Amino acid sequence: MTGRVAIVGLGPGPACWITPEASSEIEAASDVVGYAAYVERLALRPDQRAHASDNRVELDRARLALTLAAEGHAVAVVSGGDPGVFAMAAALFEAIEEKPQWRALDVAVAPGVTAMQAAAARLGAPLGHDFCAISLSDNLKPWAIVQRRLEAAVEGDFVLALYNPASKARPSRIVEAFDLLRALKGATTPVAFARAVGRADEALVLTTLGEANVSLVDMATLVIVGSSETRFVARDGARAWMLTPRSYGAPR
Amino acid sequence: MTGRVAIVGLGPGPACWITPEASSEIEAASDVVGYAAYVERLALRPDQRAHASDNRVELDRARLALTLAAEGHAVAVVSGGDPGVFAMAAALFEAIEEKPQWRALDVAVAPGVTAMQAAAARLGAPLGHDFCAISLSDNLKPWAIVQRRLEAAVEGDFVLALYNPASKARPSRIVEAFDLLRALKGATTPVAFARAVGRADEALVLTTLGEANVSLVDMATLVIVGSSETRFVARDGARAWMLTPRSYGAPR
Repeated sequence: MTGRVAIVGLGPGPACWITPEASSEIEAASDVVGYAAYVERLALRPDQRAHASDNRVELDRARLALTLAAEGHAVAVVSGGDPGVFAMAAALFEAIEEKPQWRALDVAVAPGVTAMQAAAARLGAPLGHDFCAISLSDNLKPWAIVQRRLEAAVEGDFVLALYNPASKARPSRIVEAFDLLRALKGATTPVAFARAVGRADEALVLTTLGEANVSLVDMATLVIVGSSETRFVARDGARAWMLTPRSYGAPR
Repeated sequence: MTGRVAIVGLGPGPACWITPEASSEIEAASDVVGYAAYVERLALRPDQRAHASDNRVELDRARLALTLAAEGHAVAVVSGGDPGVFAMAAALFEAIEEKPQWRALDVAVAPGVTAMQAAAARLGAPLGHDFCAISLSDNLKPWAIVQRRLEAAVEGDFVLALYNPASKARPSRIVEAFDLLRALKGATTPVAFARAVGRADEALVLTTLGEANVSLVDMATLVIVGSSETRFVARDGARAWMLTPRSYGAPR
């Protein structure tokens, strides 16, 4: 088989965060497959075919990409953020397992800036030390495993980056997660809500675990919860920086 | 104060992984500060001043950058990978706390592709579900906190991305970490050693927790240890893909 699938990370939104590799992969594609909102972002040439699909049909999208590649096409599957982090890469490799001939295809992944990195860049250095990334979505995993992971992350005193914190189907996920965290961590733990970072409606909220108003959190929000070491670095007339220092247990 | 500091992520090595934002920030700088190996990678103009320093002097480098910015210069601090992930951003904000006037400077962070993303892209989708990033370095934290975090990460059944797994000062870190993990996790857990991804000497090793030869691991290696769900997707005549599926506890 001569076709190819590139799974391409577009980053959080702005062109300044799209890697040259990602741009080249899109340019080289005859067919571009992806969630409509991502495909529409691209300036495709008339000779390139766009295959835009709805959200939450990742496996169908992956199968379409593999089918097109098996027909000899050069396919780019576009993904927000980094395709390897709560995005299209896992779905694509799950689909590959379905047909033996798909395993012979040339498949490449082009990494991208993921939401927690964009949020961290705006906030200062909240991920400056050991951290966990957890998706609060329970579409494909039981809520019990989310709870277990939140508890373990607290036990390890990790910084937490929470993806998919709320959805129309389950707006209360973040409420339940924060109830759990508040029972286990100090009320003064620094928290940030980073919404739509890099886009026109970007909004950053700095707060604490005790005072956080989780009704501000929607599906476009990346939530960061600090470790016991995370602190705010106050500034006059400007938002504080959020910092998790490199050392642990050092005197302040 | 009119000076500026941009903390710029260069990614793991190749130009195809440097974001347009990072390139612009370097172009706009009058002064470029960084570990010599990173500064030497750049094609600076004759009017740009390079300030190359040794490794492991992050705070000194941060202070130099802030001093230059306070004098009115446009400073780029270059960092491998993503400056926010075990790199220069935390050191810079730690240094900012030292002098009140430094808090008034214009400081920006340009995120980049970090080692675990580059490794994951080459391997398939090992970070396709919840994961932890842990630095095994005990230069700035007690080894006991590393142990506690490894144990918690196992308790939460996270995928693990291990940074700084070995050094000349302490080559046995990875041995101790794997001894701990082997006592707590199944011997068939998929493991990958991803060395120097994106560079000429890139090397990928797929193995299992039980069979892993940790003597292959050096400071340029990013280690990924799977969760209970992580698996290899075998291919004829090619390296298997490493996949952590999006679902948890699903029948195979």
